[in-house]
Amino acid sequence: MATKTEDYLGITDYKVIGTRPIRHDGVDKVVGRAKYGADIDMAGMLHGAVARSPHAHARIKSLDTRKAEALPGVKAVIAVADLPLQEDKIEELGEGAANLQHLRANVLADGKVLYHGHAIAAVAATDVHTAQEAVDLIEIEYEVLQPVLTVREAMQADAPLLLEDLTTQSLGEDSEKKSNVCTHFRHELGDIEKGFAEADLVIEREFFTATVHQGYIEPQNATALWGADGQITVWCSTQGAFDVRAQTAQILEVPVSQVKVVPMEIGGGFGGKIRIYLEPLAAILSKKTGRPVKMVMSRTEVLQATGPTAGSVIRCKMGVDKAGNLIAAQADMRYESGSFPGSWAAPGAMCIFAPYNIPHVLIDGYEVLVNKPWTMAYRAPGATNAAFASETLIDELCEQLGVDPLAFRLKNSAKEGTRRADGPVYPRIGHEQCVETARDSEHYATQFNGKNRGRGVASGFWFNVGLKSSAAASVNPDGTVSLVEGSTDIGGTRTSIAMQLAEVLGIGAEEVKPQVVDTDSVGETDVTGGSRTTFATGWAAYQCALDIKAQMIERAAKLWEIAVDDVVFEDGYFSSSDASKTISFKELAGRLDETGGPLMGRATVNPPGVGGAFAVMIADVEVDTDTGKVEILRVSMIQDAGKAIHPSYVEGQMQGGTAQGIGWALNEEYAYNADGLLTNASLLDYRMPTCLDLPMIETHIVEVPNPGHPYGVRGVGEVPIVPPVAAVANAIYDAIGVRLTILPMSPGEILKALWTKNGTT
Amino acid sequence: MATKTEDYLGITDYKVIGTRPIRHDGVDKVVGRAKYGADIDMAGMLHGAVARSPHAHARIKSLDTRKAEALPGVKAVIAVADLPLQEDKIEELGEGAANLQHLRANVLADGKVLYHGHAIAAVAATDVHTAQEAVDLIEIEYEVLQPVLTVREAMQADAPLLLEDLTTQSLGEDSEKKSNVCTHFRHELGDIEKGFAEADLVIEREFFTATVHQGYIEPQNATALWGADGQITVWCSTQGAFDVRAQTAQILEVPVSQVKVVPMEIGGGFGGKIRIYLEPLAAILSKKTGRPVKMVMSRTEVLQATGPTAGSVIRCKMGVDKAGNLIAAQADMRYESGSFPGSWAAPGAMCIFAPYNIPHVLIDGYEVLVNKPWTMAYRAPGATNAAFASETLIDELCEQLGVDPLAFRLKNSAKEGTRRADGPVYPRIGHEQCVETARDSEHYATQFNGKNRGRGVASGFWFNVGLKSSAAASVNPDGTVSLVEGSTDIGGTRTSIAMQLAEVLGIGAEEVKPQVVDTDSVGETDVTGGSRTTFATGWAAYQCALDIKAQMIERAAKLWEIAVDDVVFEDGYFSSSDASKTISFKELAGRLDETGGPLMGRATVNPPGVGGAFAVMIADVEVDTDTGKVEILRVSMIQDAGKAIHPSYVEGQMQGGTAQGIGWALNEEYAYNADGLLTNASLLDYRMPTCLDLPMIETHIVEVPNPGHPYGVRGVGEVPIVPPVAAVANAIYDAIGVRLTILPMSPGEILKALWTKNGTT
Repeated sequence: MATKTEDYLGITDYKVIGTRPIRHDGVDKVVGRAKYGADIDMAGMLHGAVARSPHAHARIKSLDTRKAEALPGVKAVIAVADLPLQEDKIEELGEGAANLQHLRANVLADGKVLYHGHAIAAVAATDVHTAQEAVDLIEIEYEVLQPVLTVREAMQADAPLLLEDLTTQSLGEDSEKKSNVCTHFRHELGDIEKGFAEADLVIEREFFTATVHQGYIEPQNATALWGADGQITVWCSTQGAFDVRAQTAQILEVPVSQVKVVPMEIGGGFGGKIRIYLEPLAAILSKKTGRPVKMVMSRTEVLQATGPTAGSVIRCKMGVDKAGNLIAAQADMRYESGSFPGSWAAPGAMCIFAPYNIPHVLIDGYEVLVNKPWTMAYRAPGATNAAFASETLIDELCEQLGVDPLAFRLKNSAKEGTRRADGPVYPRIGHEQCVETARDSEHYATQFNGKNRGRGVASGFWFNVGLKSSAAASVNPDGTVSLVEGSTDIGGTRTSIAMQLAEVLGIGAEEVKPQVVDTDSVGETDVTGGSRTTFATGWAAYQCALDIKAQMIERAAKLWEIAVDDVVFEDGYFSSSDASKTISFKELAGRLDETGGPLMGRATVNPPGVGGAFAVMIADVEVDTDTGKVEILRVSMIQDAGKAIHPSYVEGQMQGGTAQGIGWALNEEYAYNADGLLTNASLLDYRMPTCLDLPMIETHIVEVPNPGHPYGVRGVGEVPIVPPVAAVANAIYDAIGVRLTILPMSPGEILKALWTKNGTT
Repeated sequence: MATKTEDYLGITDYKVIGTRPIRHDGVDKVVGRAKYGADIDMAGMLHGAVARSPHAHARIKSLDTRKAEALPGVKAVIAVADLPLQEDKIEELGEGAANLQHLRANVLADGKVLYHGHAIAAVAATDVHTAQEAVDLIEIEYEVLQPVLTVREAMQADAPLLLEDLTTQSLGEDSEKKSNVCTHFRHELGDIEKGFAEADLVIEREFFTATVHQGYIEPQNATALWGADGQITVWCSTQGAFDVRAQTAQILEVPVSQVKVVPMEIGGGFGGKIRIYLEPLAAILSKKTGRPVKMVMSRTEVLQATGPTAGSVIRCKMGVDKAGNLIAAQADMRYESGSFPGSWAAPGAMCIFAPYNIPHVLIDGYEVLVNKPWTMAYRAPGATNAAFASETLIDELCEQLGVDPLAFRLKNSAKEGTRRADGPVYPRIGHEQCVETARDSEHYATQFNGKNRGRGVASGFWFNVGLKSSAAASVNPDGTVSLVEGSTDIGGTRTSIAMQLAEVLGIGAEEVKPQVVDTDSVGETDVTGGSRTTFATGWAAYQCALDIKAQMIERAAKLWEIAVDDVVFEDGYFSSSDASKTISFKELAGRLDETGGPLMGRATVNPPGVGGAFAVMIADVEVDTDTGKVEILRVSMIQDAGKAIHPSYVEGQMQGGTAQGIGWALNEEYAYNADGLLTNASLLDYRMPTCLDLPMIETHIVEVPNPGHPYGVRGVGEVPIVPPVAAVANAIYDAIGVRLTILPMSPGEILKALWTKNGTT
C-alpha cells in the first residue's frame, strides 16, 4: 500500500531498508517447527497447576494442602510461605520493595485474595490431570469481603480497602490516609480557567471504558529447572527474557546470574507478557522436587488472572474559539489499576491531547485499585481510553463549528516546537503529514453516505520508548553474518533488525542470520514493548555493523598492505583510495583466515532520540438500527513510521492495532457480576473480532524520519490502536446521530442510545 | 601434586589463575542433567541406521534397496548417489577436491568398499529397530577383492590398489605411478652420513605399532533437521562444531551459513570426533522425509568405522660419541593411513627426535593406504608411535654407554635456540626442566628393584597448535559476566577459559558463566584439539576481558565525570588517578544503567606464539614371567604446562594421557583376521585399561611459561600420551632383560620375547 516518504535526512537510496524480504523465522512458523513454551519436554518433567480464588475479595482463613499432597503422583504443593522475601529484605530494597511485595502477592496471594482467579497455591505432579485434581483437593477457607469493582466505588470514603496499608501518592506527596487511590498526578500548561474563559465553545463529557484483555493467542507458560548447583533455567513465552530474569531473581532472592531465561517463540504479547506469573512457581516446585516443572495456563486462567488493560472513567472538557482554534483542554482521568498499583493514567495523560497545540491544559490523573486482576500494559496503554474521550469530543466540536474534522486537526496540529502538557517540546513529528495524507486519500475523497451509514476520523499519539539493547554478530566465511540479539520477535523484528545491519555492510537481508538467544548469550536487552525493538535493537545492530565494518577495513588494509585510512567502504565494496583495488564484503569475508582469523562485532545501546508516533484513522460504518450491530465497511490507517524498515511488517502492525482497536470499540469487555466474578472467561464469551468481522484494513505509511535515529525509525507497534475506538464512535454518530460515551459500543449500548434519542425507552 | 613454576614472566601473583575452582558444568554432569547427543528427542523424529560392508575390500556390483523401502515404518533409504558432488564441482575445488571426494566416499562408499564396516547405505524409520531391520533387507552384491592390511603389503609393487587413481606425492613432486603410498616426505638436518661416521656407537632397530582406537565412551551421533526453508540444524557430539559445519556444508553442497551445528556435551573425543560420519546422512534423510532424523552408532560401528589411530612401522637408527653426545639420528617412518590418505607420519616426524639437540638428522616419512578404517587423530597423533622407537633406542644407547637415562637426556636436551629437523628453532621450552624434575623426584630417588621388577623413563614432545577462536561476553548487573564461546569442553575448558577472563577483570572464576554455544551464536572457533583450547580460546577470553575492561573504564570516567586516562584499574578496582574515588568491578557493573546501559565485549584470535610441550615419564613395573602379564606399580608424569591455569585439570590431562598410553603399550590393538575383518569390535574384546589396571598416576606440573601467550599457557592435553609406551617398554627391559619392539606388549609378545631370549621357543 501507499508510502509517503519525506526526504528529511537526505538518505533515501537505501538498498535493504524499505524492502520487503521474507522473514527469517517465517518458514519455521508456517510449517509448525517453531518451538513455543508449551512445546518443551524434558526427561522427568513434572506438570504444575495453580489453585485460584473463587472470590473477588476475601481473606484466607486457612489453607490445608494435606489431601492434595497425599494424592498419588503429586510431588510438591506450595503456597506463599514458600516464596522467600523476608521483612528485612523489604527494608533494604527501599522504593522497589512495594513493587516487589505486590509482585510476590500477585504470584501467590498473601493472606488475602484480591480478584477472582488470584493464585493461592501451586502443585507439581507427574501429569497435568493429577495436578489439576490435586488443586481441587486443596482446602481453603475464606472470609468473603465486599468487592470493589468500579473507580467510583473504590474512591468513596468508606470503600473497603484492597491493600490495607496503601496511601495515595498525590501530586508528588505521600498522603497519610489509607485509600484505594494509588496515585494522583497533574499536568498543567498555561492557565486553564483563562483558557475556558476565552473559548467561544466549550463541551464537556464523561467517558467509560471497559476492562479488556490483550487477547494473545498463546497462553502464559513457564518451565523451570532448578539445578543441583543452584542454577535456575526458565523457558517461557515472554516479551522480555531479561525482565523475566530480573523479576524471577528478585522473587526468588537470588542474583540475576543464577537465573537463565530461554525465550521460546511467542504467540502474541501486546504488553501482557512482561510481568511474571508462573515462573517463580515452576522454579520453586522444581527446587522442591529436583525435576523440571512445566506450567501452562488455560484460557480461563489467562483471562481471569493475567493483566488486562485498565478500565477507566475520563471526564474531558475542551474549548475552541470561533475561528476554530483549540484554546483549552481539561481531563480528569481515573484508571483502574486492578488489584495492585498500576500506572496507565500516566501514559494516557501524555497522549490525550498530544496531537494538538493547545495553550491551556489541565490534566488530573488517578490510578485506582479495584478487585479485578492486576492490570498490565496493552499496546499504547492508556492512550486508547484517552483518545476515545478527546477525539470524540473534537468530533463534536467540529460538528458544532461546522468544520471538516481533518481540516480542524490540521489547523490545530502539534508540530516541531509544540510543548506537550506533560512537559516535552516536540522535535520533528509527523501528525500534520498524517492528517494531510488522510485528507488527500482516495478513501476520504470518496463520498460515503446512505441510510445508517457514516464516516468518522480520529488521531492518535504514542510516545514510544528507547531503553537498553545489545547485539553481537560474527562474519561467516561465505559472506553471511550471524546476528545474535535479545529482543523477543513478535512482529518480524528478527528481520527489521537484521536489515539495519545488512544496510551498513552492503549485504542482503537474507545474508544475515538473526537469532534471539537466552539471557546468558547476549548483553542485557529490555522488553519488546513501547514500540522500541526496531528502533533500539535495530540501532544496536547498526552499531554492531559499524564495529564489523571498522574491523573489515583493517582486514582489507592488511590484505593490500596499505594504511587503514586508505581503505574506503561503499555499497558493500572495500576499495583502496586510489581505486586500484576493490573487494566485496562477501569476498573479503572469505579471506578472513588470511588476514587474522574470525571476526565478531558487538554493540550495546541505551539510545536517546526516541521519536513519537502519530496515526490517523478513517472509518466507514453501517449500523443496523434494529439489532444495534455495527458493520465496519472500510477503514484506512495512516501512520508516521519515521522510516519503515520493512514496510510489510509496519503495515502488519497498523492492521493488527486497528483490528484490536475495533474489537475494543465494539465488542470486548470483561463481564463481572455483582460479586465480582468474571462471567465470560473464554474466547466464546469474550468476543474478539475475527477476520470475518473486518474489512481489508488499508494502510498508508507516512515517513517523517525521526532525527534521533540513524535511519529515522520511530517505532510503529502501538499507535495504530489509539485512534480506532474514537474513529468508530465518530462514524456511528455520523451514521445514526447518537454519541456513545461508553465502551464497548455493543449492540445493547447502541440500541439504548437510539431508544434514548428517539424517546422510545 | 607438585608444581614447579619458573618466574619467567615475572607475573606469578595471579588471583584466579593457578587456583582450582569447581568446574561450571560439573554438577550438571554429575547429576545426569547434561545433555549429550543421544539425549535429543523431537516431535516426529525418525531414527537412522547404516548398512555397512562385511568385506575389507570389495567392489559393489549391485545395490537393491526395494525390500528395505517396502518395510512398514521405513521412510527413506539413501546411498552414495543421494550425496551431491558433481564432477564439475570437484574441478572447481582444486586441491581440496581430493579430500572432499574421500570424505564423501567415506560417508557412503562410492562403488567400492575399503574396510570392514565401511558405510554403504542409510535408512530412516519410525524406530531404531525397524531401521536396523531395513538395513538387513538391503541387498548388496560384491566382488570381493584382495585386502591389503599392512604397510609392507601395501607398498609392494604388485599390491592391489585401494584408490585406483592415487599417485604418490613424493618429496613435493607428484609421481605418475599409481600406488598405495599417498605421501613420501623427508626432513634433513646436517649430514646424516657424516654424523654416523663420527659416531662411536650406532644402534638401529625396527618397531611395529598396532592400530588402536581413541576409545571415547560416547559413540558418534548426529541428529539433523533439514528445514523447509533449507536451513539445516545438526545436533551432535563433536570436538569442533565449526568443523562439522564446514564439512557438512561441503558434502551437502550448501553455504556454511545454511548449516547450524549445535554441539551437545561430549563423552570424549581424543581426536576422533573431528571428522564427520553421520551428519550428512541424517541431513539427507531429513530432507527426504521432512522430519528430524537421529543416528547413534553402536560400539561395534565406532570400532569398525570411525577413525582409529595409525598403525606404523618405524625403522630408527641413532649414533652417539663416547662422551655420550647424540651425533646422528635417522628414521624411516611408515604410517598406515587406513582407507583414505592420512597424515600421521608428518606429526610423528616432527616429534620423533624433538626433545634432543642432534646435529645430523634424516627422516623419511610415508603415509600408506591399507584396508582398515580411515585413520584419525588420536592425542598427539603419530608422536606416541615415534617415541616408542626413539625413546627405547635411547634407553639401549644409555645402557650400552652405562649412563643414567635422565642424565643422558639432560645432556642432550633441546633448549631455546635448538633447531628441530623439520625446521623450527625453539623459543624457550621446558624439556630440561622436566628431566630435572624427574631426576630430583622422590619417585626417581626411591630405589626400585626385585625379581622381574624394573624402571623405565622416556621423554615426549608435542608441538601444540593455535588456530582460530572467538569469545563474547556481557556484564550482568550483579557483577558477574556471561561468557559465550565456541570450544567444545572436553576436559574442563569452560572453566580454564573463564578463569583467564576473570583474572583480567579481578573477579572470581565462579563469577563468570561460561557457555558453549552453537555456530550461529559466536564467531568461528576451531576444533578442541591440538591442545589449543585453553591456549587459544583462553586468549580470546583474555582479549574479550580487555575489551570489557576498556569499556568499564569509560563507564567509571563517566560516573565520576573525569577523563578516561584518569581512571586506573587494578585488582578488580577502578580508581581515579588521584585515588579520591574507587569502585569495584562488581559495584560498577551494578551501575551500568546510569552510565550508558548494557556492556558487551568480544574478541577473535588466531594466535601465533604456540608453545611446544614436553613430558617425562617414570614407570615402575613388575612382569609375571609365567603369564607375560605386566603390572604397573608406580608411574610419575612430569610435564611442562607453561602455566597451569587450573592445575587439577592439567593433572587430569596428564593422568588421562598416561592411562591411554599404558593401554596402548600393553593391551590395545585392532585384531584383523586374514580377510581383513575386525574380530574384536567390542569393549570386551578390545581391552582398554580400567582403574583396576592402573596405580595412582603421580603428576608433576612444571611451569616454564610460554613467552608467546599472555599467561604463558602451552597446552597440556596431548603430550602425556607420548612417553608412556616407551617408558613401559624400557621398564620391561629393566625387569626381564628383553626389548620389545612391537605394540601392544601383550602377555603373548612378552612370553615370545622371553622364550626367544631363553632359547625356549
